[in-house]
Amino acid sequence: MRVLVTGAAGFLGCRLTRALLAGPAEAAPLDRLVAADVTACPIEDPRVVVRAGTITDPAFVHALVEPDLDVVYHLAAVLSGQSEAEFDVGQRVNVDATRSLLDASRALRRPPRFVFTSTIAVFGGPLPAVVPEDAVLRPQSSYGAAKAIGELLVSEYSRRGFVDGAACRLATVAVRPGIPNSALSSFVSGIIREPLAGVESVCPVPLDTPIWVSSPRTVTANLVHAGCVSSAALNGRRVLNLPGLSVTPGQMLDSLERLAGPEARALVRIEPDERIAPVVCTWPGALDASRALALGFSADGNVDALVQEYMVEHLRRRS
Amino acid sequence: MRVLVTGAAGFLGCRLTRALLAGPAEAAPLDRLVAADVTACPIEDPRVVVRAGTITDPAFVHALVEPDLDVVYHLAAVLSGQSEAEFDVGQRVNVDATRSLLDASRALRRPPRFVFTSTIAVFGGPLPAVVPEDAVLRPQSSYGAAKAIGELLVSEYSRRGFVDGAACRLATVAVRPGIPNSALSSFVSGIIREPLAGVESVCPVPLDTPIWVSSPRTVTANLVHAGCVSSAALNGRRVLNLPGLSVTPGQMLDSLERLAGPEARALVRIEPDERIAPVVCTWPGALDASRALALGFSADGNVDALVQEYMVEHLRRRS
Repeated sequence: MRVLVTGAAGFLGCRLTRALLAGPAEAAPLDRLVAADVTACPIEDPRVVVRAGTITDPAFVHALVEPDLDVVYHLAAVLSGQSEAEFDVGQRVNVDATRSLLDASRALRRPPRFVFTSTIAVFGGPLPAVVPEDAVLRPQSSYGAAKAIGELLVSEYSRRGFVDGAACRLATVAVRPGIPNSALSSFVSGIIREPLAGVESVCPVPLDTPIWVSSPRTVTANLVHAGCVSSAALNGRRVLNLPGLSVTPGQMLDSLERLAGPEARALVRIEPDERIAPVVCTWPGALDASRALALGFSADGNVDALVQEYMVEHLRRRS
Repeated sequence: MRVLVTGAAGFLGCRLTRALLAGPAEAAPLDRLVAADVTACPIEDPRVVVRAGTITDPAFVHALVEPDLDVVYHLAAVLSGQSEAEFDVGQRVNVDATRSLLDASRALRRPPRFVFTSTIAVFGGPLPAVVPEDAVLRPQSSYGAAKAIGELLVSEYSRRGFVDGAACRLATVAVRPGIPNSALSSFVSGIIREPLAGVESVCPVPLDTPIWVSSPRTVTANLVHAGCVSSAALNGRRVLNLPGLSVTPGQMLDSLERLAGPEARALVRIEPDERIAPVVCTWPGALDASRALALGFSADGNVDALVQEYMVEHLRRRS
């Protein structure tokens, strides 16, 4: 199997690349993985070919799409904070580059599986408590709007037979390691990660805001699965609500206290932020992911498991 | 008032231009109307400035958007038949040119009203008999997909305050005069227009297919109104289901027979067309246009009025 991963140097891109190299049971053996990003993907493996460049350059994109490519994982994106601050950059990366990657894929003899990472931020406005897959898209952020356009492109290119698309609406990924990123939802990881490192953190939304989250491990497994799920099973519906867990910051902090004590929780201040709260509060707090579950995608257990996954993976190493 | 009309040499563009020049009561007096199209708009009036060029050329687009522009009517488009046959042309005209026109409008000091002609073809897949404004967009044609992307762009540019958008989902316009156009719905006019001229015509879909139609007069009046309706009344919802009439080809032919006799009807053959029927039958047969009606948009009376409007406007002239 020959695979292209864009955004391969990012947090999810690296995890996905490692998971694909490990060879999931359901996938064909991996022969070659082109790992593309603006910075070089740090993973060394004889099957990995690292390409550094910007996907806003159509020539770079066309060079990435090699003949006999089986699966494209298109993860490269400008996140919600930057998309809101730099509108044109967001359009170029999230819309134009997606289209040029679709166009390059369309030139292949055999339509590749095209896995596109979409987002819950495609939804907005008045929404039911649990948002069905076929709810109207009324994004309230430039990031969500660009991803909604991406979904339409993936569906249309699939309908035309140019690619074999699967657009996955990812939950907010938590707990992410490292430093805060440019997503408006960055705090969802921050309020766990920073206190565990003895650092203060701010929750910029009300404690009872429902947030749809998924652990890095589950999201990675689900992206791998999106590359394998049969086209017939998708039944012409190329956009999927991926599973997640509906939690509030309050529940996350309760979990933090259970697992790391009240002194960890005490490091988190609640300070509503006028840049973040109005956008994040338009995102759905829960999706109906029943179709994805029936298609073999997996779900997280509970909020403690999310916090523990981070503690086990990232705190053990340091000690 | 200063206005730009793209697609001004087309059927609707010409009618809209004439209606704007006539000075609707609800609009401010017209000072200048830039009439843009690939061919020169034939309307002569001291207030009309004709610009011939292609809107796929961003330099042409930027030249069209003059300072102090109040309203942009963006009608230029590649229709459904051509969009399906020439995918890239459809993308460039229906998506890219819309975006470059939005970007040019965004550069103005004051965000202009941006009227975008969308279509019922943004809908597809399983649909209720009467499709609400907030139904999911699952277009089953390249034309519908491109217009759905246009709707998202207009909504997002409006949310950002770049333009003051109003995206209008038009019904199939019938009865159009002249020769068949490249829309897959062209037959809806053809089965009335050709028999009235003593010419044979083909209905390529089953006689009981519900079709959402509107007369040229009503569509024109509604486009004018879309340029005037207050932003506050739109209440942040920039996409409108415009009113229409749900009729079947059978009902249209009954009307033809009532108004022009059985010999006119006898000129229409029923011959399902595998290029047309599968797409047209995915379009909704009726929309819920209650919000547009409450906002002052108007509706057609009945199918006989549609046929009579054509007979009065286009047959009287010949005699």
